[in-house]
Amino acid sequence: MTPAPLSQRFRAVRERTLGLCAHATVEDQLVQPMPDASPTKWHLAHTTWFFETIVLRAPDPAFNFLFNSYYEAIGPRVERARRGMMSRPSLDEVIAYRRRIDERMSAALTAGAVDAALVELGIQHEQQHQELILTDLKYALGTQPVRPAYRDDLKQASGTAEGGWRSFDGGVVEIGADATGFAFDNERPRHRVFVEPFRIANRAITNGDVQQFIAAGGYGDASLWLSDGWATVTREQWTRPLYWDGEQHYTLAGMRLIDPDETACHLSYYEADAIARWRGARLPTEAEWELAASGDPTHGNFADDDILHPSRNGGPFGDVWEWTGSSYLAYPGFRPLGGAVGEYNGKFMSGQQVLRGGSCFTPRDHIRRSYRNFFPPAARWQMSGARLVEDGGLK
Amino acid sequence: MTPAPLSQRFRAVRERTLGLCAHATVEDQLVQPMPDASPTKWHLAHTTWFFETIVLRAPDPAFNFLFNSYYEAIGPRVERARRGMMSRPSLDEVIAYRRRIDERMSAALTAGAVDAALVELGIQHEQQHQELILTDLKYALGTQPVRPAYRDDLKQASGTAEGGWRSFDGGVVEIGADATGFAFDNERPRHRVFVEPFRIANRAITNGDVQQFIAAGGYGDASLWLSDGWATVTREQWTRPLYWDGEQHYTLAGMRLIDPDETACHLSYYEADAIARWRGARLPTEAEWELAASGDPTHGNFADDDILHPSRNGGPFGDVWEWTGSSYLAYPGFRPLGGAVGEYNGKFMSGQQVLRGGSCFTPRDHIRRSYRNFFPPAARWQMSGARLVEDGGLK
Amino acid sequence: MTPAPLSQRFRAVRERTLGLCAHATVEDQLVQPMPDASPTKWHLAHTTWFFETIVLRAPDPAFNFLFNSYYEAIGPRVERARRGMMSRPSLDEVIAYRRRIDERMSAALTAGAVDAALVELGIQHEQQHQELILTDLKYALGTQPVRPAYRDDLKQASGTAEGGWRSFDGGVVEIGADATGFAFDNERPRHRVFVEPFRIANRAITNGDVQQFIAAGGYGDASLWLSDGWATVTREQWTRPLYWDGEQHYTLAGMRLIDPDETACHLSYYEADAIARWRGARLPTEAEWELAASGDPTHGNFADDDILHPSRNGGPFGDVWEWTGSSYLAYPGFRPLGGAVGEYNGKFMSGQQVLRGGSCFTPRDHIRRSYRNFFPPAARWQMSGARLVEDGGLK
Amino acid sequence: MTPAPLSQRFRAVRERTLGLCAHATVEDQLVQPMPDASPTKWHLAHTTWFFETIVLRAPDPAFNFLFNSYYEAIGPRVERARRGMMSRPSLDEVIAYRRRIDERMSAALTAGAVDAALVELGIQHEQQHQELILTDLKYALGTQPVRPAYRDDLKQASGTAEGGWRSFDGGVVEIGADATGFAFDNERPRHRVFVEPFRIANRAITNGDVQQFIAAGGYGDASLWLSDGWATVTREQWTRPLYWDGEQHYTLAGMRLIDPDETACHLSYYEADAIARWRGARLPTEAEWELAASGDPTHGNFADDDILHPSRNGGPFGDVWEWTGSSYLAYPGFRPLGGAVGEYNGKFMSGQQVLRGGSCFTPRDHIRRSYRNFFPPAARWQMSGARLVEDGGLK
Repeated sequence: MTPAPLSQRFRAVRERTLGLCAHATVEDQLVQPMPDASPTKWHLAHTTWFFETIVLRAPDPAFNFLFNSYYEAIGPRVERARRGMMSRPSLDEVIAYRRRIDERMSAALTAGAVDAALVELGIQHEQQHQELILTDLKYALGTQPVRPAYRDDLKQASGTAEGGWRSFDGGVVEIGADATGFAFDNERPRHRVFVEPFRIANRAITNGDVQQFIAAGGYGDASLWLSDGWATVTREQWTRPLYWDGEQHYTLAGMRLIDPDETACHLSYYEADAIARWRGARLPTEAEWELAASGDPTHGNFADDDILHPSRNGGPFGDVWEWTGSSYLAYPGFRPLGGAVGEYNGKFMSGQQVLRGGSCFTPRDHIRRSYRNFFPPAARWQMSGARLVEDGGLK
Repeated sequence: MTPAPLSQRFRAVRERTLGLCAHATVEDQLVQPMPDASPTKWHLAHTTWFFETIVLRAPDPAFNFLFNSYYEAIGPRVERARRGMMSRPSLDEVIAYRRRIDERMSAALTAGAVDAALVELGIQHEQQHQELILTDLKYALGTQPVRPAYRDDLKQASGTAEGGWRSFDGGVVEIGADATGFAFDNERPRHRVFVEPFRIANRAITNGDVQQFIAAGGYGDASLWLSDGWATVTREQWTRPLYWDGEQHYTLAGMRLIDPDETACHLSYYEADAIARWRGARLPTEAEWELAASGDPTHGNFADDDILHPSRNGGPFGDVWEWTGSSYLAYPGFRPLGGAVGEYNGKFMSGQQVLRGGSCFTPRDHIRRSYRNFFPPAARWQMSGARLVEDGGLK
Repeated sequence: MTPAPLSQRFRAVRERTLGLCAHATVEDQLVQPMPDASPTKWHLAHTTWFFETIVLRAPDPAFNFLFNSYYEAIGPRVERARRGMMSRPSLDEVIAYRRRIDERMSAALTAGAVDAALVELGIQHEQQHQELILTDLKYALGTQPVRPAYRDDLKQASGTAEGGWRSFDGGVVEIGADATGFAFDNERPRHRVFVEPFRIANRAITNGDVQQFIAAGGYGDASLWLSDGWATVTREQWTRPLYWDGEQHYTLAGMRLIDPDETACHLSYYEADAIARWRGARLPTEAEWELAASGDPTHGNFADDDILHPSRNGGPFGDVWEWTGSSYLAYPGFRPLGGAVGEYNGKFMSGQQVLRGGSCFTPRDHIRRSYRNFFPPAARWQMSGARLVEDGGLK
Repeated sequence: MTPAPLSQRFRAVRERTLGLCAHATVEDQLVQPMPDASPTKWHLAHTTWFFETIVLRAPDPAFNFLFNSYYEAIGPRVERARRGMMSRPSLDEVIAYRRRIDERMSAALTAGAVDAALVELGIQHEQQHQELILTDLKYALGTQPVRPAYRDDLKQASGTAEGGWRSFDGGVVEIGADATGFAFDNERPRHRVFVEPFRIANRAITNGDVQQFIAAGGYGDASLWLSDGWATVTREQWTRPLYWDGEQHYTLAGMRLIDPDETACHLSYYEADAIARWRGARLPTEAEWELAASGDPTHGNFADDDILHPSRNGGPFGDVWEWTGSSYLAYPGFRPLGGAVGEYNGKFMSGQQVLRGGSCFTPRDHIRRSYRNFFPPAARWQMSGARLVEDGGLK
């Protein structure tokens, strides 16, 4: 399928962002219940700032300070933890700002007066923030003393996955994005990796698996946890995944019974790793995951499906981002983009783990087999889960 | 003048609170830029909760958790620092809650089915929160990267104070509220205190005094500061009062040139004490202050004057709360109120200093000569200043 | 009795300090288990530094940095919390430093080449640090996983106090030190205070009182505590006094059965205040305490008695420092000493409460009726207790 | 060369530990200037505890609590940051404890009543702590206000390295320890890795390189740093390596002129990575490092050489531990040891980077080509440096 022209895709992605916000109140869009969970209004403004600053290269100095996220090359910015304290500019003013920049972008796109690669990057960037809007809103609503639904009209998932394992012989394989089409700099270059034989589960860890882990005392057994993970469990008094409350858990449709057959979500790397160890298994490396997923189309339960919650499907794409056992590091031969966007990915290559496959919060056309998401190992507010792997061939 | 009937006063105070909020946006009313500065919406709800819980004694359990401030006897509550993260209930819902309780209160007042003393306490409590709404909104707006005015229609103050000192012989004097009329428990009983001769300045510290203190290197001279004050100056890098920025300072009318003849505001106790020491003077005790103010009517620049900023007047009432050198402790024979409202004042008698006289944020009919306000010595977001005193009689 | 000549008293106080250290190992004298509890070695050096810097006025620049406590006028210093990390200079070097300064002081005293008032201040200062050496060593030893005795040869106290109350009519009374004899600047000037009638307990709070408070659920009842106190109880999980462990408590003689008739020690102001409130009583003001003690000789159980633990006696002097309900503030007409020693007392007049009467850790000839000790209300590692007071005359 | 019998090696390693301590005072051996830098006395006791608990399996319960480091399976322990507050047991008692366990170990070794693999592990463990004793003592002495030398009789290094690069073709290579001889569990199994062509510097980063980096403004240029690294630089105000002070730096021989030709030490991963980025290079992966070192004998400047400071040599072994760009993760097929020693290595596989090659603080016979050391990226008190790598073949 021929992709739509850039200007059309630009307008579509911008419109979809506003659509996501239509379900939240003005107040919901302002709060920042923890430093990592930025306000919706901030996401609306920051994505606009990105086009204004990176693509149009004519930023308003005031907004530059207000809505720069982390670009040191571009200058100082509002402290991350204080984004939720900006009652001004108002949501209306931010939406007007969006409209203004959209018009300037449309004019520039029509005139061909923009760097198409940077527009593409801006579109991909906005899609990332679409996922973050859902993720951060879920946190904002789910940690209210009352726990309101985000939408009342969400769909139910259907279908069930088969269990079991698939085996791979390994050897020298290629992973990463080739030179064609859009990919982030961190997915390149495509390169060779040696992989030992392994088998990988047909489905991700389910809520039922987590329930068994809890019943077996997993959250109280130091021997199952990485040292840093155990320190986190102890300090933050984790006894179950985020959003779980007895038999129920918070979803964007409100509180719902926990379905043991659903793919488990909101697991930190520490939890995923501990569950794997308890099962006598481990998490896949990036290379194993990408090799295993090489035969699958990038189909699955994505944000476009209006479910916004993991299903019972087992496939590698959609539902939840899957933690890998690989730390987020540069591929051999990695070269960051030039200019300010060189800070986009490379400078975060420390202290984080790679996640793969996209989630039910990810726009469908945003995902790729080579896509590398990354978060610190204690992060649990992302739509994240995991899939087990064992050494060796057929079981 | 006969005071208005209780039901009329109840309605008036409740209406005035809403009037204060009319100048702020929905978003302004939600933010909490520091733990001490509660959101306007929270003030709206908490004052309502007070009537519902303390007067009507039939609290909604959910709201009880949401809007209890610090009453241990009444149960657990939302952590203070997280008040600004409550996007739900919405501002509209809080205003509807106000209307609901107002109706129940009106019915109960008409039926005579309430404890009048508790209604009076609720009215006084709401007036305190009216001052806090202005104080906290000033902080919320004044610490925005953009610094918007709260109102564009505020009035200008007029008049100028005379300088000089007034002398008092002291001796055994009486201070505190007598048994008639409303007063908080902490203002009673009226009791005798021995006061040495002293003289007190006719006007409070002015911006010009502060400018001279700055020019003399006061913020960098440890010898002028209490030890805890110097630690605060160093840790928080204080070099000038809160809201000062070069030649200007933030006011509820927006950024404005600093007028050297105006009474200085937003001084912490540490700053007031250091300026006094630099002048070779000191702050008055509560007894000195009350004795000195005994001949003055409680006239001055109050919130009702729609100036919302200190004037050039010098009197003890209005403009700024004046720090005293007295720690906030029980008067001899102090008895807290019974029941949950026993926590209203007494339990805070540790680590705070007394302030006197009311401010330009205080409702005029809320102030009394015996009124004891109290804040920790580092607090500077309050509308606070000070007045100097010297030992001995005529100068 | 004529006091001994200054040079003789200087030598005696210096020798006694070394005697206190003889019971501790080199390692005991180095550790600093919390920032407030300075190492013995540091006390040994700092008291010497005081004579070198303040009296001889010829400080070694290196030692000036190492052993200055808090004199801003004298310059920067080792951060308080890092005193216990100074393995160098060694204890031997510090003792040699003491000998060196002692010789210079002796020569200067003989030659009459010193300011006698400053020598006196240095002697009093060293006595204060003698108490701190015992206090801080008790903390260092008592918080070891093993809890060794400081001395095995300590004496047992004898005697028992009568209970009951003494009444005072109050009126205008004088408190504070008059102009004769040594007193700290903060004890002066002697001045008039108005005191209402009150009665004061013949004995301080006992361990038995504390046991009853615990049994009554006092540590779990918010209504008995100041707000800051309750926050401390909750945050630090206080359920009993410091050093209590079941039926026993740690003393400088090692773990010992808690004697219900002994005066209770290591109470914070918050605990003393809560126990008083639970008893329907309160703590005395400074003026009440000093008035009530005016007929008592300054006899009691002091450090010279080699008991180093409270007795069953009830008198106002010795055993424990008694918290008063008075905040530590300047007396009317207070003038700090000139020069660097102006920082000795005045700059701490914020956030602390006054304690009176001296303790079993205090040198007997160090105490005075007008003596004002002061600590923050959460401090419990001091040898501190309290005495109850009630309003009104005869019971 | 046939290795010495186990019992002889046991005695030798135990004796050498005491020898390292002979140069430090009792007080030096107690202090813990930061949580990571344990006291020498604690190292002396903990290594003994290891033999008592893991090998002899008959721990003294009291010592078990005192000197357990991080073994959750073995039970609770003294909080890491409070190790330096244990004045008891005294150093003498700890040395007596060592003698006691040494005798029991000797008897057990003679009787053949021990698991030889665990004795070997205990010996290797003690060697690791020998390096930590030097590392932590350097920190304890080098952060004293006075900065004493550890030894006055240390030797000077000689020789100079050649510059330039060596190229490697890469391909599928094997790394890790094979099944023969002692190796830690984390070095196994030996396995295949695909390596792209690269060239590696003949010598590690020198002080001269660091000086040029400083001169070029490297510590102030965000674009050179990982995001976490830049946050650390900013928060901790790094402007040069640890121990540098103008033209000099602290060494175990005292303050010494910085020699630009010496291998730079005490670099954190963040600093090594930033210097590499500034040079247009990067750090080697573990596989690259091990491949490049495969032709070198494990010769170099080790602790046995009594220099205890990096030389001008360039080889991969000795001088400094070299940071790699590889995160510390499990090798494919990794299996931790069984029992409590399963916690030795595996549970730390999160948030750390691998270092290779040993240092001038490492015992010579402790190092192996496959040896994997690991520390968090901000650690700079270790004897750590780095070596640069570039992509591609011959330059």
